[in-house]
Amino acid sequence: MIVTVTLNPALDLTYAVDTLVPHGTHRVATVTERPGGKGLNVARVLQALGEPVLATGLLGGATGDRVGHLLADEGVRSSFVRIGGETRRTVAVVDRADATGFWEPGPTVTPGEWSLFVAEFRELLGPATVVTLSGSLPPGLPIDAYATLIALATAAGVPTVLDTSGPALLAGLRATPSMAKPNIDELGALLSRRPGPQGLADAVRGLATGPVVVSRGSAGLLAITADEVWECAPPVAVAGNPTGAGDACVAALARGLRDRTPWPALLPDAVALAAAAVAAPVAGAFDAEVYRRTRATAAPAVAALAMPEGGNRARTHR
Amino acid sequence: MIVTVTLNPALDLTYAVDTLVPHGTHRVATVTERPGGKGLNVARVLQALGEPVLATGLLGGATGDRVGHLLADEGVRSSFVRIGGETRRTVAVVDRADATGFWEPGPTVTPGEWSLFVAEFRELLGPATVVTLSGSLPPGLPIDAYATLIALATAAGVPTVLDTSGPALLAGLRATPSMAKPNIDELGALLSRRPGPQGLADAVRGLATGPVVVSRGSAGLLAITADEVWECAPPVAVAGNPTGAGDACVAALARGLRDRTPWPALLPDAVALAAAAVAAPVAGAFDAEVYRRTRATAAPAVAALAMPEGGNRARTHR
Repeated sequence: MIVTVTLNPALDLTYAVDTLVPHGTHRVATVTERPGGKGLNVARVLQALGEPVLATGLLGGATGDRVGHLLADEGVRSSFVRIGGETRRTVAVVDRADATGFWEPGPTVTPGEWSLFVAEFRELLGPATVVTLSGSLPPGLPIDAYATLIALATAAGVPTVLDTSGPALLAGLRATPSMAKPNIDELGALLSRRPGPQGLADAVRGLATGPVVVSRGSAGLLAITADEVWECAPPVAVAGNPTGAGDACVAALARGLRDRTPWPALLPDAVALAAAAVAAPVAGAFDAEVYRRTRATAAPAVAALAMPEGGNRARTHR
Repeated sequence: MIVTVTLNPALDLTYAVDTLVPHGTHRVATVTERPGGKGLNVARVLQALGEPVLATGLLGGATGDRVGHLLADEGVRSSFVRIGGETRRTVAVVDRADATGFWEPGPTVTPGEWSLFVAEFRELLGPATVVTLSGSLPPGLPIDAYATLIALATAAGVPTVLDTSGPALLAGLRATPSMAKPNIDELGALLSRRPGPQGLADAVRGLATGPVVVSRGSAGLLAITADEVWECAPPVAVAGNPTGAGDACVAALARGLRDRTPWPALLPDAVALAAAAVAAPVAGAFDAEVYRRTRATAAPAVAALAMPEGGNRARTHR
C-alpha cells in the first residue's frame, strides 16, 4: 500500500457568500467541510483510483475527530497519531468573483508526540510500497522532520515522494527522497530568482541529488535528474480549480514509483491526473473523463534540451 | 436557578489577520474559540456574577461537543439536548480596521429533536426561577417555538425574558413573555419605520401586552409597559465592543425579574451591566470596574413623557 504522510492536516471549510464585503457581516449560504492538507488529497486521489492507500499523520481535538470521520466517510483507511493540540481549520470564502482564504496556524506538536509518530511510521514501513510526504510542518516539529522520515524509509527500502516548500523542502532534499515535487513558485522562493529551463536544471541539481519533478501549472511538468531533463505538458489547457492539482500529480508519481514506470509514460500520467484534478470542483477529487482523455492524448514526455554542462543537448526516449 | 435557552448556539471563532484583502490568502496570526449564541452569553454573564444558572438548548456534532467543553471550562452548568445536525460556527475576521463576520446557517432540527427538547425544558422548569429565551431559531423549528416554551413556563409560574427578532419575536410576543428585550433596530424592522419615543411606545403596545425593554445602544434603555414608559441611559458613553451588550442586559433583567426589582432600580442595573459588557473585549464577559462605577453613577430610571393616549404626561418614581 502507498502510505501518505500529512503532519499538518486541516479541516477545510468552504463558505459560499454572495459578495465578500470587508468589515461587513455575511450570512453563509452553504458550508462544505472536507478533509484538508496536501497529503490527505493525495490519499483521496489514490483511493478514487482504486489503489491501496493508508493515510497517516497527526490529528488532535474535535477538529481532528471531524477530519478522521470525513476521511472514513470517503472510505480512506487511516492510522493517525493523536496529539494534544487542536487540528487547524482553513476557511475559503467563495463569492461570485473568487475565493478568499484564511489559514489557521497548526497546533504545536510536542517532542513526545513526534517520537510517537516516528514509532508509528516505522511500523507502517513494513507494508508500505511507497511513502508520500506532503505539506507544511506544524509548529514544534524539527525542520529536518521529513529528512528523518526519508532516511527511515530509505533504510527500509521504501521509495519516497517529498512535496513541501521552504526550509522543510531544503532540509528534506538533503536526505535524498526518491523523488521531490516542488512547484515552480516554491522552487523560485528557494532560489530567490526565477531561472529559465537550463538555469532551473542547474539550480535543482545544486539542491538535490535525486530526481525533482517541477510542476508549472498549465505549462506542465519538468523532471530533472542527474543527467536528464524530461518535459510533458497537457495537450489543452484545462479551466477550473488548481488547488489539489499538485497533490494529484504526487499520487500519480507515487503509483509510478511503485510500478517503476519510466519517465516517458510516468509524466503524461501525472500531467493527465493533475489536469483532471483542475477539472474537478474540489481538491482531492478528479474528473475521470478528463483524466482518460488527457492521458490518451498527452504527448509522451520528451527529453528536453537542458542537459548538464558537457552533456548531450538532445536525447530521445529510452 | 436561571435557565438560559439557546436553540441555535454557535462556536464563535475570531481570526486575527493583518489586513483583510478580498480574494487574497491570509495566514491567521491567532485563533480564539468561544461558546457563541446570545443565550450562552447570558449564561456566562450570570455565571460571572455568581448567580445560579443552567444553560440549555440544542447541540450537535463535533462543533457542538467543542461548545459544551468550552462552557464547562468556564464553569457554566449546562444540560443540552443532542441533535443529529452539526452546531454552526461563526467566523469573525478582525484586522487593524474592523471585524468581518461570516455566519454559518444553523443545523436543521427534526420534529423529534424538538419534542425531546420540549420534554427536557418541562423538567428544567421545576428548579427554574426565570427562563431567558435568546437568539434566532435554527431551520426546522416551528416559528412559534418560543411561544410554546413561554406558555409552558407561564403555566408553571416561571417568568420569561424573550430576546429575538423578526417573525420569531412577533410569534413569541403573542404568548406574552414576562419581558421582551428587542433592540431598536430589531423593533424598527418589525415596524417598517423608525418612530420617535411616543410613536415607539404606541407601536410596542400594539405588538405586546407585557413589558418591552428596548435597547438603544449608547442612548440606553426604554421600558414600555401598558401604562408607563421608563428611561435610563449610561452617564457616559463607553467605547468598546457592543457585541454581547444586549445579552448582559438580558442577564440583568432576568435577575431583576427573579428578585422583583422595580423599574427605577432594574434599568440602571441593566444599563450598567450592558455598558460593562461593551468595555470587555469579548461577548459574554463584562468589566467589573465599569459595572460598579456605572451602577453607582447611573441616574435612576425616570418615567418618560410618552404615556398612553389620555394617561398622565409626567410621573415620578413609584
